[in-house]
Amino acid sequence: MKVLTGIQPSGDLHIGNYFGSIKQMVDAQKESETFAFIANYHAMSSGNGGEKLAKLTMQTATDFLSLGIDPNKSTFWVQSDVKEVLELYWILSAFTPMGLLERAHSYKDKTAKGISANHSLFSYPVLMAADILLYSPEIVPVGKDQIQHVEIARDIAVKFNNEYGDILTIPDFKVQEEVQTVPGTDGQKMSKSYGNTVNIFGEEKKQLKTIKKIVTENVALEEPKEFANCNVYNMAKLFLEGENLTTLEKRYQQGGEGHGHFKIYLAEVMWEYFREYREKRDYYMAHQDEVREILKQGALKASSIALPMIEKLRTATGIKY
Amino acid sequence: MKVLTGIQPSGDLHIGNYFGSIKQMVDAQKESETFAFIANYHAMSSGNGGEKLAKLTMQTATDFLSLGIDPNKSTFWVQSDVKEVLELYWILSAFTPMGLLERAHSYKDKTAKGISANHSLFSYPVLMAADILLYSPEIVPVGKDQIQHVEIARDIAVKFNNEYGDILTIPDFKVQEEVQTVPGTDGQKMSKSYGNTVNIFGEEKKQLKTIKKIVTENVALEEPKEFANCNVYNMAKLFLEGENLTTLEKRYQQGGEGHGHFKIYLAEVMWEYFREYREKRDYYMAHQDEVREILKQGALKASSIALPMIEKLRTATGIKY
Repeated sequence: MKVLTGIQPSGDLHIGNYFGSIKQMVDAQKESETFAFIANYHAMSSGNGGEKLAKLTMQTATDFLSLGIDPNKSTFWVQSDVKEVLELYWILSAFTPMGLLERAHSYKDKTAKGISANHSLFSYPVLMAADILLYSPEIVPVGKDQIQHVEIARDIAVKFNNEYGDILTIPDFKVQEEVQTVPGTDGQKMSKSYGNTVNIFGEEKKQLKTIKKIVTENVALEEPKEFANCNVYNMAKLFLEGENLTTLEKRYQQGGEGHGHFKIYLAEVMWEYFREYREKRDYYMAHQDEVREILKQGALKASSIALPMIEKLRTATGIKY
Repeated sequence: MKVLTGIQPSGDLHIGNYFGSIKQMVDAQKESETFAFIANYHAMSSGNGGEKLAKLTMQTATDFLSLGIDPNKSTFWVQSDVKEVLELYWILSAFTPMGLLERAHSYKDKTAKGISANHSLFSYPVLMAADILLYSPEIVPVGKDQIQHVEIARDIAVKFNNEYGDILTIPDFKVQEEVQTVPGTDGQKMSKSYGNTVNIFGEEKKQLKTIKKIVTENVALEEPKEFANCNVYNMAKLFLEGENLTTLEKRYQQGGEGHGHFKIYLAEVMWEYFREYREKRDYYMAHQDEVREILKQGALKASSIALPMIEKLRTATGIKY
């Protein structure tokens, strides 16, 4: 099964990103043929660009490799390194009724949030359709907010195939159920836009400082405490299982320890959990050329699928003369 | 002076095309550095595609070479052979406010004419901006209906340069005054959409048949005839000068000949006028590989300008990581 995922180069990853989607992507490598690309063209549509975008691209590549994207199992590349996607984007544009784009939620939402309405934001779903259709994946895992975009890709592909024969594979999507909703430091869902994130990578002291900010109830040290609704417990639950989790629950129930103690414990557990990834990241940070080489090889692998497809499309559409 | 022109691959050329714009383009090769490309990507936005588009592309290349585009003087290529234009198109999209495109006349006009509103039609001006800005021409010769598109390209380029420095050359346009308005067989301006065209290339008999359809006034054979408002005379005027023209005027004035005689004369004169071009075209039709080779060399010449430009743009925008 071929599964395709686009990764926004959006900066420091937090544990909400990890447990919400990255872990599933990494785990899926065992049974699926994973295609994952860093969507740097897409990032430009929200005003990212310049040196910042270049850095975000490398950071995202480094982080995902560190967290378990395995270039031997997956095809992992930067969107802009397979230029054919833009040609397919143009080809598909002639099969994209304006109404389809005008009805896209994400465009309406983003402009409502004050992002200035530019053409790349508007045409984002067409480029996303090209991202998908160039590689003929069977499955595109999406969050609920992206379902419509895959539906747009399906509509465009059907229109194209009606004209030129069954060239494009109509993609299916799989809504990624969030196995675990990750609470932020304030108890709301963890999200950069709420400013309540706990980053995966960073200095130990800084991470402890962030964790110390987690909002907890006010109960005297010696009293027993509730764990089920405690933000510290719910975050710790992501990293613990079996006896370790039961032991923490008991510490809550027996009293004599404050939330400060549980926070320190959470910080330790989290630090331990990401140790292996952090070491890998230290390695890749010191070997950025190796990251570049992995991306280059990934682009070659992606191209080996994209090129025969675009050749077929050029012939069908008459671009090839 | 670098002058850039896009050529729509729209099929059989008529003498209105020739005297309205092609001749100027050919003549301009003497003093300007001419860049001319066959806009096959653009053609897709109006529903052209498939084998038809491939044929139109080759036909257009063959016809323009036959009519005087000189690959030694001009850079002459097919738009889709320099893929970098699509990357610039995407880059510029982030600097294209939606309002700019929504206000474009040509989009409004085409949809009003019933061409279905698809995304490529809407975004046409952004691709046209990329066509222009990739090659930094000083001058873009346009018909009046295209002025707004060059203005859009200017607006986009200014916005881009404000963000990333003076990388793009702000293009100027030159409105092509139609030196001669070419009348069609019915006296209206010659245009494919009026069905009143006289093609440049075609069988001699067929051309005579078309010319015989030219609408003239009904005057008895022996009577003198007016030439100033005669469609046959006005068409013949394109091919005649000096004494030859005066002689024709006298034949009108002295009576004794009908419009049928003048039509036969017009057909002969026109046949003679295009003889050299027709012979060249026969040659190229028999040597289509040579046409392909010329286009390939043209694409290489165009790329030698496009590639350093796109490199600069990739670095500025952070696509290069």
